[in-house]
Amino acid sequence: MSKIDGKQIIGFRQTAEGTDRFHSYNPASGRSLEYEFVKATMREVDLACETAAAAFQIYRKKSGTDKAVFLDAIAQEILSLGDVLIEVCCSETALPKARIESERARTVNQLKLFANLLREGSWLDARIETAEPGRTPVPKPDIRSMQTGVGPVVVFGASNFPLTFSVAGGDTASALAAGCPVIVKAHSAHPATAEFVGKAIQRVAQATHMPDGVFAMLHGDGTVVGTQLVKHKQVKAVALTGSFNAGKALFDIAARRNEPIPVYAEMGSTNPVFVLPEAMRLNREKIAQGYSASVTLGVGQFCTNPGLLLYQIGQGTNEFATQLKTEFEKTTGGSMLTETIFRSYVKGIEQNISRNNVDVLAIGTPAEGANYASPILFKTRSETLLTHHELTEEIFGPSSVVVEASTREELINAAKNLTGHLTATVHGTENDLASYSDLLDILEQKVGRIVINGFPTGVEVCHAMVHGGPFPSTTDGRSTSVGSAAIYRFTRAVCYQGLPSAFLPAELKHDNPLGLWRLVNGERTRDRF
Amino acid sequence: MSKIDGKQIIGFRQTAEGTDRFHSYNPASGRSLEYEFVKATMREVDLACETAAAAFQIYRKKSGTDKAVFLDAIAQEILSLGDVLIEVCCSETALPKARIESERARTVNQLKLFANLLREGSWLDARIETAEPGRTPVPKPDIRSMQTGVGPVVVFGASNFPLTFSVAGGDTASALAAGCPVIVKAHSAHPATAEFVGKAIQRVAQATHMPDGVFAMLHGDGTVVGTQLVKHKQVKAVALTGSFNAGKALFDIAARRNEPIPVYAEMGSTNPVFVLPEAMRLNREKIAQGYSASVTLGVGQFCTNPGLLLYQIGQGTNEFATQLKTEFEKTTGGSMLTETIFRSYVKGIEQNISRNNVDVLAIGTPAEGANYASPILFKTRSETLLTHHELTEEIFGPSSVVVEASTREELINAAKNLTGHLTATVHGTENDLASYSDLLDILEQKVGRIVINGFPTGVEVCHAMVHGGPFPSTTDGRSTSVGSAAIYRFTRAVCYQGLPSAFLPAELKHDNPLGLWRLVNGERTRDRF
Repeated sequence: MSKIDGKQIIGFRQTAEGTDRFHSYNPASGRSLEYEFVKATMREVDLACETAAAAFQIYRKKSGTDKAVFLDAIAQEILSLGDVLIEVCCSETALPKARIESERARTVNQLKLFANLLREGSWLDARIETAEPGRTPVPKPDIRSMQTGVGPVVVFGASNFPLTFSVAGGDTASALAAGCPVIVKAHSAHPATAEFVGKAIQRVAQATHMPDGVFAMLHGDGTVVGTQLVKHKQVKAVALTGSFNAGKALFDIAARRNEPIPVYAEMGSTNPVFVLPEAMRLNREKIAQGYSASVTLGVGQFCTNPGLLLYQIGQGTNEFATQLKTEFEKTTGGSMLTETIFRSYVKGIEQNISRNNVDVLAIGTPAEGANYASPILFKTRSETLLTHHELTEEIFGPSSVVVEASTREELINAAKNLTGHLTATVHGTENDLASYSDLLDILEQKVGRIVINGFPTGVEVCHAMVHGGPFPSTTDGRSTSVGSAAIYRFTRAVCYQGLPSAFLPAELKHDNPLGLWRLVNGERTRDRF
Repeated sequence: MSKIDGKQIIGFRQTAEGTDRFHSYNPASGRSLEYEFVKATMREVDLACETAAAAFQIYRKKSGTDKAVFLDAIAQEILSLGDVLIEVCCSETALPKARIESERARTVNQLKLFANLLREGSWLDARIETAEPGRTPVPKPDIRSMQTGVGPVVVFGASNFPLTFSVAGGDTASALAAGCPVIVKAHSAHPATAEFVGKAIQRVAQATHMPDGVFAMLHGDGTVVGTQLVKHKQVKAVALTGSFNAGKALFDIAARRNEPIPVYAEMGSTNPVFVLPEAMRLNREKIAQGYSASVTLGVGQFCTNPGLLLYQIGQGTNEFATQLKTEFEKTTGGSMLTETIFRSYVKGIEQNISRNNVDVLAIGTPAEGANYASPILFKTRSETLLTHHELTEEIFGPSSVVVEASTREELINAAKNLTGHLTATVHGTENDLASYSDLLDILEQKVGRIVINGFPTGVEVCHAMVHGGPFPSTTDGRSTSVGSAAIYRFTRAVCYQGLPSAFLPAELKHDNPLGLWRLVNGERTRDRF
């Protein structure tokens, strides 16, 4: 196994020009690890972006098959890293082995999903309109369009998914699939993990004959190196999973560039869960168990962690509150990902404790440890939610707020007052769903994904997934950061009018050599014609 | 025929609360017309947006068929307005009858294109992943997603296409198709035309049982009423065709809202035309004719007006310059759309005339008239272009700059230095195209549409069209404002996880009652299953 160098990865080089260094940190022990890293200089930022721009000229023309080989090989190389990746990652994140193993599996599956998407090819949205030279009053020209990559993409690694939303995570996989070189700003919470994965991509890029610069990874502070990257003129899009403050700051920087560029920041949300009356009567025990587990899963460090549970007072709700208390008290906390995240959690909890009309309903099993977050469940009334909108904002960690509405109207009103979230969950029988169609209507407008009789944690990587939602859950409510549609964050259509067949890309040639699904004169077809 | 009321259209009402008035203007005579209009007040802006938001709750659930009936009926009602629309429009714009008639035809076709798109339904991008309850380690849930409208959309009418890019133009048609209510800020250059079309939509909305508020149209200044609309919390997206200054200002306002919203501003560009050596030798006469016609078509008031013509000095180029001069001197100008546009044209022309190293190659046939713009053709060297980048910026009107490069390298360099444009045109034989593939590669990254051996004016309304391009030609390089893909500016995906079939929208039901093309477990199919 290769050692940790602590350098920047820039195309096929490694550099360490700077003097500012930092160590990796073990949140479970509260102590630094031996791994040391050098933060990137402005010159290295510039080199990474210019090398990426040069690589784009070659990489954008790679066939779907070539890019698929690249992505598949990255997946394989990550698996080949073996247990050392898991161990380093666990030590840097305090996440358990099983969780990191499942993250690795998901990361690999995600890369393969995009590799398959590239082989299949219909994501290109190839559209062909054939000429009608005899049309009056003006002839119709031959017009063909397809999706193409936008250029170098900056990806910020996320602290809470050190593999799946980090160096070779969904953002990187979808950008590479789109034909865009990627420059990763490694998250300082898991720099050694990042280096293992970053070097794996570097090795694979060379082995599969990708251009120098198709991938880079830099260390440094988000406010310094991150900002420099987002401002760089060669960068054409930005993707990250992070806090509202981080995401919104980068969005603002990107919007104020001379050439504004899109920022796809998935900023998390409180993912409200509604329990409707009949489900409350019939399934309350299961819901109490599932909810407690969902709130505390992975020490609550999920974008889709349910931070609000709402229901209207009625039959069974007292018993439900009692069951919730019982179930929640069985949960355990854990060391959080970083000291900063832990402190922010404690601060959020203290603010809720000090609020009027907000009670503590339950506290998880107490334990000691560095950066140890205890689960905590609050309870309030829906009228308090309306006047204290901050209760609907995310406290990142294993806490949640139970909200009781006095009436159906109050419950609906609470839904209407929600801002954008990634998900909303409804527990309801078919009778419930029929009599609360107005609630579903409202939620459809507030979120990217509606979960029925489940829990929002656990995001299936597939074609139909939407992991996005209206602002402030993301900075671009039209996008998803999970699933195959994530590729469209990094593409735009280019159109050819009257280009002779010999010069058309294979995707748009008359005889459809790639066998793609295409839209030909308005008809969806796979024909060769 | 109904008279001109000069009021705001807000859902099914007409209001005129304000005291600030203006008259319609005839640019050909330089005199005001008798039509008087009242500018909207902030209260009317608010009413329009709130009524649109209320209408959205109903309109978003309308079936594709219902929306198609609405769009088709708008098309029919516009035709039913008959000659009076053409006459009023000609008097407000100084555009000739034949042009306005062809614009009307295009507007009608555009509405029908979206109506057909709605009936066919595959634009919804319905995606279905069926459950695998037995999957290990975790069961796969049932997940389904489709596109849905984002909410009320503000559309700014464009001065240069008083029908096609105005009240019932492509922005309105695509937003209504997406399920979004539309609030039009009527352009003050053709307010009576706008009222005729606006009232037609109002009548049709009532007749086809659309909700009150699905459409509104307000008069007023872009900097006042326009800004108020873009800032309004109920507005979820903005679309316009306009100048760089107008588009960028609205983009900035929208990005700085508490809830940022997308602005799709199509801001025009200079649409460079390249003539390659063999085409220069073989086709120079035809190119000189076509180019002169394209520059001066509609008094040069097109977003796709070619403002730059580039070639490298070689065999036939002297003759070409002479032919260009001859052809261009035959062209005629005309009254521009507004006094402001005319003054701005004159200013741009004067700046070019006063520049060092920029010569006047030809001037169109002189004539007199109010707001009369004479065509003018400049000539310069490519090294001047590199140091005077403002030469690549749009002068709205019938002027263009011929740019001579000394070498192939200089020509390629000029292409590399282009910013984003809507189109680039290449005149080349197959030999030319083969030996200038690097030029095509560069242009693909600079524009939305590449035209081979044609001219950029004339934008086919079809599925494959891309009328967009990288910044600064638009504020969102991923979008098109013409063609059926324009609908995606106003939609986002919403995803249902575990929703029982009875509650799924028809588009996502198991048995595919609408017979849509869908992506089912990764396979494109129209099956019912």
